[in-house]
Amino acid sequence: MKKVTVGIIGAGRIGKLHIDNLKRNPHVRLKKVSDLFSDQLKDWFETSGVEEITADYYDIFQDQEIDAVFICSPTSTHADLIKLGAQHNKHIFCEKPVSFSDQETLEAYDQVRKAGVQFQVGFNRRFDSNFAEMKARIKRSDIGDVHVLKITSRDPNPPHLDYIASSGGLFMDMTIHDFDMARHLVGEEVVEVYAKGGNLVDPAIGEKGDIDTAIVTLTFANGALGVIDNSREAVYGYDQRIEIFGNGGALVADNQTSTNLKYYNAGTVESDKPLPFFLERYNDSFIHETEQFIESILQDRPTGVQFEDGIMAQRIARAAQESYETGKPVQVNYEIGRSYV
Amino acid sequence: MKKVTVGIIGAGRIGKLHIDNLKRNPHVRLKKVSDLFSDQLKDWFETSGVEEITADYYDIFQDQEIDAVFICSPTSTHADLIKLGAQHNKHIFCEKPVSFSDQETLEAYDQVRKAGVQFQVGFNRRFDSNFAEMKARIKRSDIGDVHVLKITSRDPNPPHLDYIASSGGLFMDMTIHDFDMARHLVGEEVVEVYAKGGNLVDPAIGEKGDIDTAIVTLTFANGALGVIDNSREAVYGYDQRIEIFGNGGALVADNQTSTNLKYYNAGTVESDKPLPFFLERYNDSFIHETEQFIESILQDRPTGVQFEDGIMAQRIARAAQESYETGKPVQVNYEIGRSYV
Amino acid sequence: MKKVTVGIIGAGRIGKLHIDNLKRNPHVRLKKVSDLFSDQLKDWFETSGVEEITADYYDIFQDQEIDAVFICSPTSTHADLIKLGAQHNKHIFCEKPVSFSDQETLEAYDQVRKAGVQFQVGFNRRFDSNFAEMKARIKRSDIGDVHVLKITSRDPNPPHLDYIASSGGLFMDMTIHDFDMARHLVGEEVVEVYAKGGNLVDPAIGEKGDIDTAIVTLTFANGALGVIDNSREAVYGYDQRIEIFGNGGALVADNQTSTNLKYYNAGTVESDKPLPFFLERYNDSFIHETEQFIESILQDRPTGVQFEDGIMAQRIARAAQESYETGKPVQVNYEIGRSYV
Amino acid sequence: MKKVTVGIIGAGRIGKLHIDNLKRNPHVRLKKVSDLFSDQLKDWFETSGVEEITADYYDIFQDQEIDAVFICSPTSTHADLIKLGAQHNKHIFCEKPVSFSDQETLEAYDQVRKAGVQFQVGFNRRFDSNFAEMKARIKRSDIGDVHVLKITSRDPNPPHLDYIASSGGLFMDMTIHDFDMARHLVGEEVVEVYAKGGNLVDPAIGEKGDIDTAIVTLTFANGALGVIDNSREAVYGYDQRIEIFGNGGALVADNQTSTNLKYYNAGTVESDKPLPFFLERYNDSFIHETEQFIESILQDRPTGVQFEDGIMAQRIARAAQESYETGKPVQVNYEIGRSYV
Repeated sequence: MKKVTVGIIGAGRIGKLHIDNLKRNPHVRLKKVSDLFSDQLKDWFETSGVEEITADYYDIFQDQEIDAVFICSPTSTHADLIKLGAQHNKHIFCEKPVSFSDQETLEAYDQVRKAGVQFQVGFNRRFDSNFAEMKARIKRSDIGDVHVLKITSRDPNPPHLDYIASSGGLFMDMTIHDFDMARHLVGEEVVEVYAKGGNLVDPAIGEKGDIDTAIVTLTFANGALGVIDNSREAVYGYDQRIEIFGNGGALVADNQTSTNLKYYNAGTVESDKPLPFFLERYNDSFIHETEQFIESILQDRPTGVQFEDGIMAQRIARAAQESYETGKPVQVNYEIGRSYV
Repeated sequence: MKKVTVGIIGAGRIGKLHIDNLKRNPHVRLKKVSDLFSDQLKDWFETSGVEEITADYYDIFQDQEIDAVFICSPTSTHADLIKLGAQHNKHIFCEKPVSFSDQETLEAYDQVRKAGVQFQVGFNRRFDSNFAEMKARIKRSDIGDVHVLKITSRDPNPPHLDYIASSGGLFMDMTIHDFDMARHLVGEEVVEVYAKGGNLVDPAIGEKGDIDTAIVTLTFANGALGVIDNSREAVYGYDQRIEIFGNGGALVADNQTSTNLKYYNAGTVESDKPLPFFLERYNDSFIHETEQFIESILQDRPTGVQFEDGIMAQRIARAAQESYETGKPVQVNYEIGRSYV
Repeated sequence: MKKVTVGIIGAGRIGKLHIDNLKRNPHVRLKKVSDLFSDQLKDWFETSGVEEITADYYDIFQDQEIDAVFICSPTSTHADLIKLGAQHNKHIFCEKPVSFSDQETLEAYDQVRKAGVQFQVGFNRRFDSNFAEMKARIKRSDIGDVHVLKITSRDPNPPHLDYIASSGGLFMDMTIHDFDMARHLVGEEVVEVYAKGGNLVDPAIGEKGDIDTAIVTLTFANGALGVIDNSREAVYGYDQRIEIFGNGGALVADNQTSTNLKYYNAGTVESDKPLPFFLERYNDSFIHETEQFIESILQDRPTGVQFEDGIMAQRIARAAQESYETGKPVQVNYEIGRSYV
Repeated sequence: MKKVTVGIIGAGRIGKLHIDNLKRNPHVRLKKVSDLFSDQLKDWFETSGVEEITADYYDIFQDQEIDAVFICSPTSTHADLIKLGAQHNKHIFCEKPVSFSDQETLEAYDQVRKAGVQFQVGFNRRFDSNFAEMKARIKRSDIGDVHVLKITSRDPNPPHLDYIASSGGLFMDMTIHDFDMARHLVGEEVVEVYAKGGNLVDPAIGEKGDIDTAIVTLTFANGALGVIDNSREAVYGYDQRIEIFGNGGALVADNQTSTNLKYYNAGTVESDKPLPFFLERYNDSFIHETEQFIESILQDRPTGVQFEDGIMAQRIARAAQESYETGKPVQVNYEIGRSYV
């Protein structure tokens, strides 16, 4: 059986998650993981299924046996690591967002194209069963021409305030997933963004310079419209719903729950809240995204989330931020290779 | 506009309900209502929309102007009043059950047939929007041949113990509606009944000689099977659901609720309980059954619930009672005119 | 029993609907209806339950017995008729929108205030069972502070192109109901509107100078955000849903259907489409709004939809239109008595 | 890490399924699999994760390293293999039913008790997320005292006619799972069974001496009632629902679906059919049952499905068969160690 030998950079929450999913993939050899705090990871490493651990990510790029790297370190390091990966001829799976800067991203993009390696961005939601089926039905024209896309995306609670400051802001950190889903599902580029936001959840978030609630209107190249509503805190859990409406009908994807039990009691009829957060809600999509990345390498065919997808989602996020700050709709440059400004 | 002049016997809860619905029917003249306690009904009568009130039901039969009578008095009086109605050539709407005795019922039936008047039994559920649509889809063969019918029928709370004693028992008082729905929906006669019951809600009901919980298995003439489950007390309201399963699919009718709101909170997702009891749940069916009775008279065409339907539902109820008492399945005689025993 | 004597101006679809509902109200005497085409209404008038018909609306204002008028004529006539009503000391129920001009509306408003008569705008959706319960739960703080309101409002098919031209445009004709619900449910004024629209349903609508698809972002005085999405054509019926999200939870009102049947077949599980259009969907709310108007007169207490509500909804509609035309967010003046521009 | 070394007898569909699930369990060493047709299993064995394959199950019992055996061979061999397992001091996981004969089962049971090894019956549904949560809520008294249990259990299509003949009949082959769930959820023994059945799906099944449709009424030791309805063919998929009703409320577990998408179109609103069959529907429960069996061995604590559970489910199945054949309710002997006859 042909195997892909993998190295992982960064053993934080998402790095560990990928390792756990890759471990079950019979086509993967988990050779090396690097983490700055590798000495604190002894216990975890024992049962991780990875062969070696190192504090130096460079060990991974230099390892001739390693075919593919997973970049799971902080966003600020992504662009440089992608370039290194391309130079060392590794296939690359990079967590979202690719970077905070269009310039940096484009430089990395150039090198990846030159190297001709496989590249996939960690927009896992495309691989969620509900949304993948929604996409399939849109493609087979179940709803005809798309008129309106609606995404509801609310976190169960805000991240730590420390994280907020370095997150790149709500649009770059959280909405970026929704921007990717919008492009993916409608199958058209976003040409204009209008973003309205506020601090309704916690004023401390505002003090860190970020918002916690937003409504974003999107205009697609073909005239279709979209709207995303975000909140950093839904007391009832992780609220992840998508509706898409066309001249032939509509498709609605509701939240996922732990069970489908209904409890009839003297007061009301109770059912499950949405699953708590992304690890539970998108569990299957994380598995599918790495499976498909490995398969793309083995079969030498395009990955499910191209570098261009990463670039575009970031451009929309930055346009949303500018719109929020200026109070005006902002155009998005969707010719890859030229900045949106 | 042609009108039907109506008299009502018995101004209890159900009599008043029919009067209220008939009042809105432009084809009805509400001429007379009789009730033993007519002197206690002054206030109600004022705004009732009925022209006259009397303590003597005989006034109604003797009134030459009256075309149709609604028999809403206690079950023990039904058979005699039906006979009187037939003798006086009145069309007859009779509340369920027609009577507790097969013999008495058959005598009344004979006279109605001889008189050639219209006759309708108060099996209102046939006229409920959900169940009427279910029947229509069964008839147009949406589910193919019927294999299994399932009826869940639970009251929100037991009737007064006084009522229990004179109710004829759970099967005759409560399940009789389900027996009628079973015949109506499957479109076949019930040939065998097995009933298992118990006193799980309240031992006081058992002391009155009745049960409060039951599971009844039905066998239809064509081999289809049915099951009814009853309880005298569902703390969450009036539980009225029907499922019907065939070789082409299944149809499921759920409970009706006051609103369709969903309330997402920190603990759970809440929705409405079923509507509280029959007045709310079957509101539309009570309106439709009297509308259709009036229409049958005006158009001279068969009513939606024939005398034979009343006879058969009672026979099944008695068979269920016998089965419960003997612990054995009991055959049902479904040739009208001969007792099931 | 005290009765309110009513006159109706305009016997079009909505005028007839109100007459039908008022006919069942025991507190109403339906004295007169006026319509320019009264001679073509003979057949309908026969069974309408109204005592007199006239071609001249002035007959209604001059009738000393008439306590209240229902203004159901075209929007262009509303302001003048309101003034006449106020001058003749009639209580006034006026269909939405009150008028297309802020100036005209304010003049009528002044006269109504001076006359001290009751006034209600025909924003019937406030009286819908689902939405009324939603409002009640928001008021009792089930969802805490409101953060985001979402209204989906789609017609089953566009109106005739002739109507489009004189409708005042999508925002004034269709979204105006949603603007009223937004203010009503959030309980705060709208201070800013951003509207994005397009012609996705039918280019012919665009040729008439109107749009058929829109997404409107609202900002409320307290910082809460709202979004409305409209379409003139949903092939699956009248799509009327509202969600409201706060720091204590969320409430979701779904579409109403004719039955709750589920049909399991070899291909899929089918359930009912939404009710076809407003006459079916908002049937109960039309009944409740006139009931409450009559009750307000009899009890001398404020109606459920004040004149100010009519003014504000129109101002938001005009602001939306301006935003759509200029591509910029527009502020809304919410001090009654001064134009929003 | 402590590991349990496992041998599997029988590499049919269910044996392979267990191997697949055990392979992912870090606490399991898959040492040996036996199958009569081991030579035809070469390809599968290659990637199976099992170390050795043999045609002789005796190899497994004699292997000193093997701690636990999974008995996945035909039912007729179960009792003998259990005895062998007990004699060789292996922990035993045995597929349902344990055997067709009460006598044989009791002999095997005696030996297992004497050997003191762990024993688990393959009633996987107890480990399904929905049903496990239902059980937990019943235990914490969410619905108070149980009055009525209702199980709907329909296969998507009948097994091959060859299989029918050796299956032990509908009750022993299919309903046995429902009998186990009934005892498990209610937490009481079944004392009486009444079974009504028929050949509505396919007369060829009747020619093989079996039925394909059934309604089974259960009476529990505490007076609670239960009803199971079975069909060998539901055209819309695998229908697996459970309702439990008590004096404090009710819990309803619906079917599981592949996605929760709703598709609104011009005709109807479509949602997913139930998952196709047991491999999809009970996927998680198969994983959990083996996980828990391994854990019971490692922690030396009782398994989740005891030998007694296997005995009782079979006795109920045989009582149901007798009831169906005699047309009478049949008592069930629930003192383990004495036959129900």
